[in-house]
Amino acid sequence: MAPWAKSKPELMFAEKLSSIISSQRSSVCVGLDPELGRLPVGIERSAAGVVQFNRAIVEATSDLVCAYKPNLAFYEALGEPGFKALAETLAAIPLSVVTIADGKRGDIGNTARAYASAIFDRLSFDAATVNPYPGEDSIEPFLAYADRGVFVVCRTSNPGAAEFQNLHVTYEGFERTLYEVVALRAREWNQRGNVGLVVGATAPAELERVRSLAPELPLLIPAVGAQGGDIAAAARAHRANAPAIVSASRSILYASSGADFAGAARSRAIELRDAVRAASHR
Amino acid sequence: MAPWAKSKPELMFAEKLSSIISSQRSSVCVGLDPELGRLPVGIERSAAGVVQFNRAIVEATSDLVCAYKPNLAFYEALGEPGFKALAETLAAIPLSVVTIADGKRGDIGNTARAYASAIFDRLSFDAATVNPYPGEDSIEPFLAYADRGVFVVCRTSNPGAAEFQNLHVTYEGFERTLYEVVALRAREWNQRGNVGLVVGATAPAELERVRSLAPELPLLIPAVGAQGGDIAAAARAHRANAPAIVSASRSILYASSGADFAGAARSRAIELRDAVRAASHR
Repeated sequence: MAPWAKSKPELMFAEKLSSIISSQRSSVCVGLDPELGRLPVGIERSAAGVVQFNRAIVEATSDLVCAYKPNLAFYEALGEPGFKALAETLAAIPLSVVTIADGKRGDIGNTARAYASAIFDRLSFDAATVNPYPGEDSIEPFLAYADRGVFVVCRTSNPGAAEFQNLHVTYEGFERTLYEVVALRAREWNQRGNVGLVVGATAPAELERVRSLAPELPLLIPAVGAQGGDIAAAARAHRANAPAIVSASRSILYASSGADFAGAARSRAIELRDAVRAASHR
Repeated sequence: MAPWAKSKPELMFAEKLSSIISSQRSSVCVGLDPELGRLPVGIERSAAGVVQFNRAIVEATSDLVCAYKPNLAFYEALGEPGFKALAETLAAIPLSVVTIADGKRGDIGNTARAYASAIFDRLSFDAATVNPYPGEDSIEPFLAYADRGVFVVCRTSNPGAAEFQNLHVTYEGFERTLYEVVALRAREWNQRGNVGLVVGATAPAELERVRSLAPELPLLIPAVGAQGGDIAAAARAHRANAPAIVSASRSILYASSGADFAGAARSRAIELRDAVRAASHR
């Protein structure tokens, strides 16, 4: 069981997340996406250096955030030592904060069970991101972990996101966009109260649409940093029992390439937290 | 550079694949999806046991196949030793056979670059599967490795595949299904001749449709084994310069749970190879 889930086993994921956001007084998430070539001076460009870097970032920001989101790609790119670096990074994150495995996995049921086990059993993450393209039975093995959160990728933040996600589709007799259908389906998958949606802050109109279609689902909103997403739009998507987690990675991690990187990351995290608070009038 | 690519740098991926299928006289792929709970008697249920098992499977079948397809989920589920088990498995595969990383990754460009590096630089795979949902710029970092193959997930083999993939969409003024649009887009992404499509053998009508829409793209067709896909339909999708790789995993790996597992796997692989040959009149 995820550490943070132990304390309040009676609550569903969305409620637990809201509770953590309240106690941390922040809905900010920091994405832990370590790139060797961007590590600051004084940090070795190795898996050991990544752990040292991540620890410093976590120490400098853990009172300012509700979640950390390690992006699995950057640990896989380190080869075998990357897995250990990820485990050591997770060990440095306080139990009071949610850990989200950003891997966007998506495969048939038998494979999805192995991915879910890797993320939830082996690494004890509190939540994961998943890709909807293969359909409900590919998501179900993740959903079966009722005490964990499952954020379904709905509308991504990248320049080409609209290529498929904004196609017009016929769904139950109505014309919708594909990402809208994903949002509607995710609501139906939410039988255990542990489903959320990923919607990039670079698409504020789509974000507002998703929020109106799925008012009770937590949202994970990346791309408010280096990708230039709309912080105010992300903040407005917050609901008391369906929180919006606002996530930045590179803009915080690489705020400075000097020895002051941790302090610079802290300053950027404070700025983001306060900008979200101001925009949501909290 | 992938070992098999060194020999014929002037050929594009589809041509190299065709050449390997000709020399191996087989279009069969074995999926290396090791599940600890299904390892045969005499094999330790550990990462070391997985390597021993995979080596035995490869030794018993490498003259019968054109490719091996390790499914990354099953190595990740082993934790840290899983990465080493995957690298050791790859080292046991002859250079004459293609290695396909079945990870179905899909994320924004910066992340996709890290995934592609993990698969192509770190692990030296010849090819990878990717998820199309985030759009072209999420695939491009894989395509940039011009000597590697990139199989775009088009129509999956699972029971819920139709949920999104068979939705009717409007595309360039015509009504299409989503998987058809993915096939059409993949053709346009094929500027370097290294794009293929994944289409499950459990959907023969969709497979035929994809073949007609993308006659020049290699196909990776899983699910002819335990999932009960249509071997004849898979075989019919083969074209001389756009080969169809026919893939089975569990039906071959776990043909016997006894000490004779390698011989049983070999028998099943021969049966599958011959069934494909017979159905395609090769």
